[in-house]
Amino acid sequence: MKIAFFGLGNMGTPMAWRLVRAGHEVTVWNRTLSKAQPLRTEGAKVSPSPQEAAKQAEILITMLADDHAVQSAVLDSSGAIDSLPRGATHISMSTISVEFSKRLASEHRKHGQHYIAAPVFGRPDAADAGKLFVAAAGEKAALERVMPVLQALGQQVFVMGDKPEMANVVKVSGNFLIAAVIESLAEAIALARKYGIDPHQYVDFLTSTLFAAPVYKTYGGLIADAQHEKAGFALRLGLKDVKLALAAAEAVDASLPVASLVRDHILMALGRGFDKQDWSVLGKLAAENAGLR
Amino acid sequence: MKIAFFGLGNMGTPMAWRLVRAGHEVTVWNRTLSKAQPLRTEGAKVSPSPQEAAKQAEILITMLADDHAVQSAVLDSSGAIDSLPRGATHISMSTISVEFSKRLASEHRKHGQHYIAAPVFGRPDAADAGKLFVAAAGEKAALERVMPVLQALGQQVFVMGDKPEMANVVKVSGNFLIAAVIESLAEAIALARKYGIDPHQYVDFLTSTLFAAPVYKTYGGLIADAQHEKAGFALRLGLKDVKLALAAAEAVDASLPVASLVRDHILMALGRGFDKQDWSVLGKLAAENAGLR
Amino acid sequence: MKIAFFGLGNMGTPMAWRLVRAGHEVTVWNRTLSKAQPLRTEGAKVSPSPQEAAKQAEILITMLADDHAVQSAVLDSSGAIDSLPRGATHISMSTISVEFSKRLASEHRKHGQHYIAAPVFGRPDAADAGKLFVAAAGEKAALERVMPVLQALGQQVFVMGDKPEMANVVKVSGNFLIAAVIESLAEAIALARKYGIDPHQYVDFLTSTLFAAPVYKTYGGLIADAQHEKAGFALRLGLKDVKLALAAAEAVDASLPVASLVRDHILMALGRGFDKQDWSVLGKLAAENAGLR
Amino acid sequence: MKIAFFGLGNMGTPMAWRLVRAGHEVTVWNRTLSKAQPLRTEGAKVSPSPQEAAKQAEILITMLADDHAVQSAVLDSSGAIDSLPRGATHISMSTISVEFSKRLASEHRKHGQHYIAAPVFGRPDAADAGKLFVAAAGEKAALERVMPVLQALGQQVFVMGDKPEMANVVKVSGNFLIAAVIESLAEAIALARKYGIDPHQYVDFLTSTLFAAPVYKTYGGLIADAQHEKAGFALRLGLKDVKLALAAAEAVDASLPVASLVRDHILMALGRGFDKQDWSVLGKLAAENAGLR
Repeated sequence: MKIAFFGLGNMGTPMAWRLVRAGHEVTVWNRTLSKAQPLRTEGAKVSPSPQEAAKQAEILITMLADDHAVQSAVLDSSGAIDSLPRGATHISMSTISVEFSKRLASEHRKHGQHYIAAPVFGRPDAADAGKLFVAAAGEKAALERVMPVLQALGQQVFVMGDKPEMANVVKVSGNFLIAAVIESLAEAIALARKYGIDPHQYVDFLTSTLFAAPVYKTYGGLIADAQHEKAGFALRLGLKDVKLALAAAEAVDASLPVASLVRDHILMALGRGFDKQDWSVLGKLAAENAGLR
Repeated sequence: MKIAFFGLGNMGTPMAWRLVRAGHEVTVWNRTLSKAQPLRTEGAKVSPSPQEAAKQAEILITMLADDHAVQSAVLDSSGAIDSLPRGATHISMSTISVEFSKRLASEHRKHGQHYIAAPVFGRPDAADAGKLFVAAAGEKAALERVMPVLQALGQQVFVMGDKPEMANVVKVSGNFLIAAVIESLAEAIALARKYGIDPHQYVDFLTSTLFAAPVYKTYGGLIADAQHEKAGFALRLGLKDVKLALAAAEAVDASLPVASLVRDHILMALGRGFDKQDWSVLGKLAAENAGLR
Repeated sequence: MKIAFFGLGNMGTPMAWRLVRAGHEVTVWNRTLSKAQPLRTEGAKVSPSPQEAAKQAEILITMLADDHAVQSAVLDSSGAIDSLPRGATHISMSTISVEFSKRLASEHRKHGQHYIAAPVFGRPDAADAGKLFVAAAGEKAALERVMPVLQALGQQVFVMGDKPEMANVVKVSGNFLIAAVIESLAEAIALARKYGIDPHQYVDFLTSTLFAAPVYKTYGGLIADAQHEKAGFALRLGLKDVKLALAAAEAVDASLPVASLVRDHILMALGRGFDKQDWSVLGKLAAENAGLR
Repeated sequence: MKIAFFGLGNMGTPMAWRLVRAGHEVTVWNRTLSKAQPLRTEGAKVSPSPQEAAKQAEILITMLADDHAVQSAVLDSSGAIDSLPRGATHISMSTISVEFSKRLASEHRKHGQHYIAAPVFGRPDAADAGKLFVAAAGEKAALERVMPVLQALGQQVFVMGDKPEMANVVKVSGNFLIAAVIESLAEAIALARKYGIDPHQYVDFLTSTLFAAPVYKTYGGLIADAQHEKAGFALRLGLKDVKLALAAAEAVDASLPVASLVRDHILMALGRGFDKQDWSVLGKLAAENAGLR
């Protein structure tokens, strides 16, 4: 299939690369064009503008940083929506707001195009190995048509419903659940340390028994190490994600009290100057609040 | 070894049974004596009083409901501590407060006895199969002596430190982490439902991907089913456990903000009349708060 | 002075009326023009558009519903900023966001105009009697020039600093403090009622002793009466105001945990269908959470 | 009347003194007897033990530190309850728990004695001037008999109901409301400071307008001054009081979310080493959380 792919960050690059390898005709676009060079070597076309890239695409995939970046590349005056052919499908795969996803659906409908939301869970190495998890939602027929493309990117595709925003709700609420794990581990590990328990032994116990899930291992380890300098996921991005969940809930008159609490603690951590750190730095905040260093 | 075993509830019974099968000489005591009958058939001795049961024991194991029950059976005037031989070891395996565990340690020391805290994680079927997880702490030599007994009960024994209360901290903070999972799932599932997402599909996605841990499957399933009538773990017991974690933290000037929030929500659920239900009923509270039925 | 006055709601109308009476030459504009009729009778000019109204003004006062309304009347293509003379001063008196107030300051600076933020505290009867409290901030010279106008509207003008947004911070944080009073009274009154205490006697005690402030009397009375149908201040407006405080704090990496909690409770009240009620309905939420009717 | 008065702290001393001046026959007892000397000079009798002091009393007043002190002086083996004549009335005026107040009522009933709870609001200078506020509850006839005594101590006596614990609920919930004021002021003042607003001007504005109540002036001033060294009311006492409110609520399946939040913040402040400070130090915690010094 003819695929336009926007966004060559550390997730987008391996994803585009997999599509090229799978035999698709891929045209990539990135705001910083130089990042596209390796993909050109692999056989992708590189396009200087979103409009140009989308011209003959059957599928447009966006893997861009946020609402603003998608708005700029797709909807704004220089964006792809006007050149993307009628009948083509936009698959939005990055983390965007539920509200903006609804707007994209409506705009594409007006242009006779299809719109699928299919955000992914996983890190760059999973993207590279085609091991991402994909939560997809949208009109059934459109989803079926693009399924082979989604399957080339993920180890499993979960269809969450027929309205695209449902997939975004799954993504933002999933990120909220990760934030809840970090915060509760931060509090529990600080407590354990106050009683003289070795934090690594503590995390080892938890993750060998009831909490044998990757997210507990990853964040339990980071908090036990008290190493937050190397930001795998920066604190301000964590704030952004928690706010996306809060906004999705507020839009339907729902509350997420644990998310509110995490938001407050992230702000306290930012206030105390931890803004260059990984969001596991919530562990440091909890430790300091308990009088630990 | 000669073991006195107190507490034949749905956890204690299979644990005592395993010790009999493993060839130990087990004398059981239970407040309601009739519950001891099946164990007598298996070869256990049954004793009418804690004092009598402890008389010749090398090891005393308590698997009783709470601080009060242990206080009554061990420390009070009719309790076991005065008849338990010097040099014997009390292994406290149920969920008791950190503060009371420290007091037990001190009382046994005065009596020339040893004290180990070794609370367990797992349900009755795990107890039956010897698949419990044991978090143990206490003086090293005493721990080594009783290790074979602990290993007969659990699939793995984790030594958390040389002060008994460390194991209790692990237990109460572990229960806090479970409570945090229930509350955050309750909020996330209510949000998903507000957007029309099927809660079972939602939980299936979560537990097939990032949150593939038993606690997410169990409680995610119960909340998605909205079936809380059959109380696997009653809401008031949940309150008790969350309060044990809060008290352990308060004793060392530490806070557990997520536990405070869960405590408030349990009280709201009790206030609204859910007190006969499983503590997964926090899912119903979150749903009602979001305007769902 | 020549004053353009935008916004003839239940606050704006008596304010504009006072300015006319004080002898100023007042030109009013309102989106729904018919509301301007009574003021025309009093001697005000009525203008069909913001641009027209602002043409010869020395002072432009906005008393409009929110950021959006001010944006539309002042900054948008049909807005007043292009026709307002250089050297004139815009006094923004309604509740707008801190961020938007900063933007207004910057836009007016570009147009060679002055900008003062001077939001007010008080209800329509206070506006009518010139008894509002005014929190004003901005460049010192500009503030001094418009002081007589502010003094015609309020019983006292408090200068909070030389940056206009400081006054907006005072306003949104003041509203946050009111929200905190409502929430804490809601919780305390529910508790008192659970013990059989008459809520009116309870509120009477509080407001005759430590909490003898109007806000406690007003909201204590409404909660004790459990009368929330007649919305003096609708729940969704309360949500808007709490969010303005949260946003002002977030912009400077500060948290307002009590505001987060109030926001969650407002959302629960909205979720349960109380959206047409006064924001004192937080008292009903607290009562229901405690099992009271 | 013949009055036994227990507890000569900085509140009890001026209260006992007023009773002597009012012409009552007062016998005082205090754990540290030397504190009684000034009252002896005024005409009070001094008794070496609670039992001795209560022997011929018509009224026993306790103004002791907490449940434990009252338990020790009244109920324990050396306590007053056995020597206090039948028909006498115990007036409990200090801050004790709701649960313990219920127990006192029941114990006095068994001894053919009356029990009134009548906690006071106000500081030592108000006690000295007879300007305390008294919240009283208990059996009507008993209350009427002791009313002249209560009126000698307070500027106004508010009768809250016929069950003594109702007065204790008023006291502990009143203290909760004070704590809520401190916390919300702490957050608001930190926010104002982040925007460069002078905290004294800010507090002056608040307390000259909507929040013209003594509690806002007192705590707003302390937080603006950032002077918490001289503990008018120590942080740990604040924790005790907030916990009394939480316990009273929990006993009737009610939640106090704002109190939970304040409890957490007090623990954070204790964790960071502020335990020798006044509880207005919550203002310093909020400031540090916002990155201020």
